[in-house]
Amino acid sequence: MTGPMTGQMMEMPLLVSELLTHAARHNGDTEIVTRRVEDGAIHRYTWRDCERRARQLAQALARLGVQAGDRVGTLAWNTYRHLEAYYGVSGSGAVVHTINPRLFCEQLTFIVNDAQDGVVMFDVTFAGIVDLLAPQCPSVRHWVAMTDRASMPEMKTPVECYEDLVQAESGDYAWPLLDERSACGLCYTSGTTGHPKGVLYSHRSNVLHALVSAGPNALGISSREVVLPVVPMFHVNAWGIPYSGAAAGAKMVLPGRALDGASVYELIESEKVTFTAGVPTVWLALLNYMEQAGVRFSTLKRTLVGGAALPPAMQDAFQQKYGVQAIHGWGMSETSPIVTVGNLTSGLAEQSASAQEAALRKQGRTLFGADIKIVDEHGNDLPWDGVAFGDLYARGHWVCERYFNHPDSALRDGWFPTGDVATIDPDGYMQITDRSKDVIKSGGEWISSIDVENIAVAFPGVAEAACIAAHHAKWAERPLLVIVRKPGATVTREELLKFYEGKVAKWWIPDEVVFVDEIPHTATGKILKFKLRERFADYLVQHAGASQ
Amino acid sequence: MTGPMTGQMMEMPLLVSELLTHAARHNGDTEIVTRRVEDGAIHRYTWRDCERRARQLAQALARLGVQAGDRVGTLAWNTYRHLEAYYGVSGSGAVVHTINPRLFCEQLTFIVNDAQDGVVMFDVTFAGIVDLLAPQCPSVRHWVAMTDRASMPEMKTPVECYEDLVQAESGDYAWPLLDERSACGLCYTSGTTGHPKGVLYSHRSNVLHALVSAGPNALGISSREVVLPVVPMFHVNAWGIPYSGAAAGAKMVLPGRALDGASVYELIESEKVTFTAGVPTVWLALLNYMEQAGVRFSTLKRTLVGGAALPPAMQDAFQQKYGVQAIHGWGMSETSPIVTVGNLTSGLAEQSASAQEAALRKQGRTLFGADIKIVDEHGNDLPWDGVAFGDLYARGHWVCERYFNHPDSALRDGWFPTGDVATIDPDGYMQITDRSKDVIKSGGEWISSIDVENIAVAFPGVAEAACIAAHHAKWAERPLLVIVRKPGATVTREELLKFYEGKVAKWWIPDEVVFVDEIPHTATGKILKFKLRERFADYLVQHAGASQ
Repeated sequence: MTGPMTGQMMEMPLLVSELLTHAARHNGDTEIVTRRVEDGAIHRYTWRDCERRARQLAQALARLGVQAGDRVGTLAWNTYRHLEAYYGVSGSGAVVHTINPRLFCEQLTFIVNDAQDGVVMFDVTFAGIVDLLAPQCPSVRHWVAMTDRASMPEMKTPVECYEDLVQAESGDYAWPLLDERSACGLCYTSGTTGHPKGVLYSHRSNVLHALVSAGPNALGISSREVVLPVVPMFHVNAWGIPYSGAAAGAKMVLPGRALDGASVYELIESEKVTFTAGVPTVWLALLNYMEQAGVRFSTLKRTLVGGAALPPAMQDAFQQKYGVQAIHGWGMSETSPIVTVGNLTSGLAEQSASAQEAALRKQGRTLFGADIKIVDEHGNDLPWDGVAFGDLYARGHWVCERYFNHPDSALRDGWFPTGDVATIDPDGYMQITDRSKDVIKSGGEWISSIDVENIAVAFPGVAEAACIAAHHAKWAERPLLVIVRKPGATVTREELLKFYEGKVAKWWIPDEVVFVDEIPHTATGKILKFKLRERFADYLVQHAGASQ
Repeated sequence: MTGPMTGQMMEMPLLVSELLTHAARHNGDTEIVTRRVEDGAIHRYTWRDCERRARQLAQALARLGVQAGDRVGTLAWNTYRHLEAYYGVSGSGAVVHTINPRLFCEQLTFIVNDAQDGVVMFDVTFAGIVDLLAPQCPSVRHWVAMTDRASMPEMKTPVECYEDLVQAESGDYAWPLLDERSACGLCYTSGTTGHPKGVLYSHRSNVLHALVSAGPNALGISSREVVLPVVPMFHVNAWGIPYSGAAAGAKMVLPGRALDGASVYELIESEKVTFTAGVPTVWLALLNYMEQAGVRFSTLKRTLVGGAALPPAMQDAFQQKYGVQAIHGWGMSETSPIVTVGNLTSGLAEQSASAQEAALRKQGRTLFGADIKIVDEHGNDLPWDGVAFGDLYARGHWVCERYFNHPDSALRDGWFPTGDVATIDPDGYMQITDRSKDVIKSGGEWISSIDVENIAVAFPGVAEAACIAAHHAKWAERPLLVIVRKPGATVTREELLKFYEGKVAKWWIPDEVVFVDEIPHTATGKILKFKLRERFADYLVQHAGASQ
């Protein structure tokens, strides 16, 4: 017998419903704990309960007329009901469309209409937003308040009650055997310019991302972990944790809307959280609270930090003060999101603590199933020497090929251009040096705005820093530092610029410092540099006489 | 837009070549260390080298006329050349057929002919076997000695030299984009009766097994681990470690043919091994050596034990004496093999050490991607109460659907009957109580021969124990214990039977003890109970007057 032959193993699709049924069957008593949105009280149930209610929700959605492929929007915090929506919607063959409630109303309207959501489920917190959206979103046939009858908000829009819908159903429902390439979830990127664009995840891409991102090179989620995703479930599937947590059979802790330092700390301690994940701004609030309250972690071991660069000072605070490993992760909506995570090679594990620390400052190494490269302006590969920097491209089983409603491929030669600029070192550690549009080109040479910012935020009294390209008569562009001081702090231009000496090449030191009360951010917490450039791009030209 | 829709993520097949190219690209400097078969010397190179040579091997195989789907056999130890064969053969679209050289010559002949291997690659150790096989295996067009020109063995059979073939090629070869359901590997089960049957793994099943089995609920292999698979690569893909190690980017240590306690210990220490995996008999030799030599581990943290039950005494020796976690794994050739692994739930992680110990004595909990159930003789589900025992069935992405050359499905109602008898407790911990054909039915009630054996091997002076069903006039069957004493030990029938008191129900205590010099084993180290039954099935009837 010659010629291709097929393996003779069982053929089963990779479906997110399998993640949930596995958790219910093999980790049925493991808890899911939520701080309720309505009243801040603690709600607890199990993976077994979650699976049963997700089946009831699937039945309720069918009764509302939701069919395979239909989009069901959510405007919701991290709660057990949102988790039920993840599985009840996708498991039944519809597409869960997680909407970022922090976006502006115009963007929300655009997104709901672009997705053509037929049903939108929302936490009571967002009743006001729904009343604004409803008249402009004709595709939405049903708005569902994710609460019980007693807590229904007063609204202009006719809405239905989640608990009434779910509890009316029997749960006598079998998850359908879908094609694993079927659409599973939809998430819009909150670009700093232009309309948001949707990324349409498949069941296969979400399950593969869950298996790999739960692995020992990444989040390391096992059945004995207690996992608190602070990263919102409306933001790139909370980095896949609702899926990876189910695959691992972990205990889940969902913080609802209370993301202040005191509330997050209280939840970590009371539920014995061992692993958490979120963006730096949340950790800043947590660390500040702990500093003021004089408290420590008793169970937390690791935290994954992504969405924006983890400042070295924050990494050190976690590690040195609290014994918590703060791990860098990198990715984006278009990459599901996790592509690289800070982890050690066996070679580095034998080297000095300082060599390991230097490696773990970077954005991490590429997980199996994904790949990265850096290229120059002509698309040629750049060396992995830790010095050359260029446009970062990604590919892999959970990387976007095209955007929703955009028929053209988003790829170039089979790779997704991330819009980031990065270096890669010989051990595969990638370091983001800039968004490609934020890079500073001084006399034809590139300066990393992120490196310049990291130094500034390590200076006592600096709350936040942004480094932008300012026009310059001689060098075309020169770095300008925009600083927000901590309350009561007295940082001066001179001491801050002196702080750079010996830390970067001399020509990387900013020409000037501007102190402001506030730096503008996107809805997901990223600095809006183009707003700063609108304001300060000509600062050096205008002040040339004064300081140069 | 309504109706099913497809996700818009990149579509790439899951192929084992992707595991290797990932390791070469992102862990290129990470070492693969082998104790050479030819001379016991240490050979070291990297994942980058391995990938290049696997490409050269793929070219060499094409030159020998190997086409997609063709079977290429290996008779080989755990070495870098065997690893190259895993990837070079499968990556090119052919099927790597790992042959167990410990089988009898008739079985080997049957297997090679059933597989219709076109090429067989062998370690020089097995030159004698090849000379016996060659005249009886007409499908084999090329026998390849896995060595260099200087170490070629003298043989009757015309053979080719692996290094000559590989080094003649340029390596200018691109791994083909195969269908992920293509056959990847073939492994024959060494059943205790009947002809061996082949299990035909697919690329998809091997990659999914690698991702899940490397996970934190299972082997926990990360890029910082140093992994020594003592389990042979001719035995169910060495439990997938050649694949999971590549996915993780781990340093690999391959022991060649030297599996004695001193050699394995020396390799663990010199290469700083952190994780290892193998069958109990190898660990017994290792622990005996360490006891005699008075040495300890300095880097080893965990070992996965499978293939046969891990005796509690061995688990304790690893944990209490050496601080090494000995983890139970369960599976079989038909399940790729890993289905369950001993791991803790978050609930158990908070309970007492003794509660955890009791749970970790069992064969473990089911990994995502697989599922198990226990059924009675009518196929009805039995409760997961830790007491009820019945036939164990398995299913999942890496479970066999049918055997090679056997067109009929091997499944019953979509589940694979494993031939094991087991209990499952409410936390999902499965415990094998018997092979279904080894179970003892005393007066209609089942007795677990494995439980009876585990107690016997914990008795000082007992080297090995087998408990079999012996005919009995009143109870139909009663347990008979067959014992091999340790050299010089003086175990008596009376003290051994007394040792059972208080450890099991009184009616589980064996009726009689037979002392023998040796217990027969299969080629993979399993006790051949049917041989013992041939000899001792009527022992109680014949000796009824003497001892009852």
